[in-house]
Amino acid sequence: MVEFMTETTRRPTGVPRPAGAKWPTGPGSAETLPRPAAGGGTGGPAAFDGHDGHDAAVILERSRASVDPELRAAVASLPAAMRRIARYHFGWEHADGSPAAGNGGKAIRPALVLTAATALGGPPARAVAARAAAAVELVHNFTLLHDDVMDRDATRRHRPTAWTVFGENDAILAGDALQALALGLLAENPHPASPAAAARLAACVVELCEGQRADTALERRAPGEVTLAEVLAMAEAKTGALLGCACAVGALYAGAGEEEVGALDAFGRQAGLAFQLIDDVIGIWGDPARTGKPAGADLAARKKSLPVVAALTSGTPAAAELAELYARSHQQGEEERMTLVVERAGGRDWAQAQAADRMARAVDDLARAVPDPANAGGLLALAEFVTRRTS
Amino acid sequence: MVEFMTETTRRPTGVPRPAGAKWPTGPGSAETLPRPAAGGGTGGPAAFDGHDGHDAAVILERSRASVDPELRAAVASLPAAMRRIARYHFGWEHADGSPAAGNGGKAIRPALVLTAATALGGPPARAVAARAAAAVELVHNFTLLHDDVMDRDATRRHRPTAWTVFGENDAILAGDALQALALGLLAENPHPASPAAAARLAACVVELCEGQRADTALERRAPGEVTLAEVLAMAEAKTGALLGCACAVGALYAGAGEEEVGALDAFGRQAGLAFQLIDDVIGIWGDPARTGKPAGADLAARKKSLPVVAALTSGTPAAAELAELYARSHQQGEEERMTLVVERAGGRDWAQAQAADRMARAVDDLARAVPDPANAGGLLALAEFVTRRTS
Repeated sequence: MVEFMTETTRRPTGVPRPAGAKWPTGPGSAETLPRPAAGGGTGGPAAFDGHDGHDAAVILERSRASVDPELRAAVASLPAAMRRIARYHFGWEHADGSPAAGNGGKAIRPALVLTAATALGGPPARAVAARAAAAVELVHNFTLLHDDVMDRDATRRHRPTAWTVFGENDAILAGDALQALALGLLAENPHPASPAAAARLAACVVELCEGQRADTALERRAPGEVTLAEVLAMAEAKTGALLGCACAVGALYAGAGEEEVGALDAFGRQAGLAFQLIDDVIGIWGDPARTGKPAGADLAARKKSLPVVAALTSGTPAAAELAELYARSHQQGEEERMTLVVERAGGRDWAQAQAADRMARAVDDLARAVPDPANAGGLLALAEFVTRRTS
Repeated sequence: MVEFMTETTRRPTGVPRPAGAKWPTGPGSAETLPRPAAGGGTGGPAAFDGHDGHDAAVILERSRASVDPELRAAVASLPAAMRRIARYHFGWEHADGSPAAGNGGKAIRPALVLTAATALGGPPARAVAARAAAAVELVHNFTLLHDDVMDRDATRRHRPTAWTVFGENDAILAGDALQALALGLLAENPHPASPAAAARLAACVVELCEGQRADTALERRAPGEVTLAEVLAMAEAKTGALLGCACAVGALYAGAGEEEVGALDAFGRQAGLAFQLIDDVIGIWGDPARTGKPAGADLAARKKSLPVVAALTSGTPAAAELAELYARSHQQGEEERMTLVVERAGGRDWAQAQAADRMARAVDDLARAVPDPANAGGLLALAEFVTRRTS
């Protein structure tokens, strides 16, 4: 599962507002919608102009303030040994159990829950959705704990992953417990929206699992056997589903109807796909000085990222060349040539056009659910935040 | 997680009704309670006399008939790849996807849900509890999938474990999905008992995880450092908790009050501990011809089972001898001597007395929740079924 903006060296940049985005004429004007400052600038949250109070950094900070107590209370209810793993994973404790400043990621998902609730139900809905926001964040972190074990990832949020510190088994068990904690939080919540929220979150977990399974399976297959539709479906399940679910859960606590809930789910999914496309572009063309990863690391690892599969299935002469390069074992200095070949095969252009297209769809879905742009601004700011990255 | 009676060679025998069992004088007489036929006999479900319709084998069969459709429908909702793993694990399919006769274990937990519901609410409660019974069985099987990965167990229900067939990662993901499916089933169930049932089941998952963690941690520690209280607490979390939860969930769907729900939870926990004690006795003194495992296999593996820890902490000269034997690496033919030493240190007597004591407590708890013995007979038959094993 991908973490948003956890690389401090990755800073937001302007992913242009898609040209195709239609916004219904509402009481406000589209011009009142927050717009990112032009260009990459020095990046960071300050790059958002933040008028209308729809500054993503502010939204994230306020969300954290509401959700953190719920999250900490839930984790505090765990038996001591698993509580320790969870507190380490969330960055609240060091491995030795001493308090840590905490880097639990940007917590974009709980922010989506609260912002969706606010968009459709104002501050009262936001207040009742805080526990559900914590549940969504617990689910996200359960999948991170398990994915890190499966993917043998040694680093998460600049620290050793939980399984490297506490062992695989205990990390798996802590993940299991976080899932139970998440769905238990909703079961204990007497708000009338809770059963529907729990059902959606449970269904989302199944989709996240399928996304992770598909990801692993795709990476094992020969490059020529992977279709673009498969990689897109995997990315939607693995990244889009929980972003969509977060928005839908927020809508439920605002008492929204099925259509609005579905439209906000679609908004989150499309924004999640746009994020994944940009993330994959950065994985190939990102500036190592900013990404903190060596140039072409994804190519050296033969990752079947979206631009790569687009290139491989492009039917161009460069596609055949790339397939040949991908079939070979890694060779010193090959990344530069590979990068050029993916680009020549149209992988970069495709991914950027797709990302813009997904953002346009997201904006359409958002407009269906929240016709008043003044109310939709927060969600739009978050969507733009996650898709604004430097290359 | 231990599977009840899945070894076809293990047959029930008479674990004597504990002498201390008190049954309040109700409309019926204690004599009308079903009693197992005396002695081990040829074993098998036929060993139960089954008057009052409280034949455990019949209860299990009827329960399976009610729960199986719910279970299969839930599994059918999974994405194809995970559905296949789940269907294999439940014994409905072979590894190649072809249909199998099915050996999903005795499914004692869903039977406890339905029997508890019937005891407190009659057939109408039984009918509305079927989906919750499936949820409890899904949780049990999620823990089996994960435990097999963690314990590197290669065989389950006489077949290769799912992770040996589908790989560790996919088995972990299938387990994750089964947990979500279980809690999702309850979230989607509009019955007023569902939120409380889901909250109980989620809390139970956390306890099961803690039990598995404690088990692994205890096995890693030096024999002299493990206390009896720790091993009992571990066994209660790992085995007792879900049996208690199953009974409590059944009571909830019968509209039972907090006190009855709590008493049935306690009943299931105590019966679960009695089962674990007997299971551990069989692990040392069981007839290899019947258990299908070599004599003293648990001792050869230096397992810190309940009789062993009782022996080690007995303060007898035999305790010191056992500690010495346990500290040595495995030696050919040592099992016979070890078995005698555990027995001399009082491990066997302690475990059998404890099992009888736990059953007595279970019967007391049951009487608190279901004062009419005629209604309690089914639960009692199931408790005796799981604790009646040959040595």
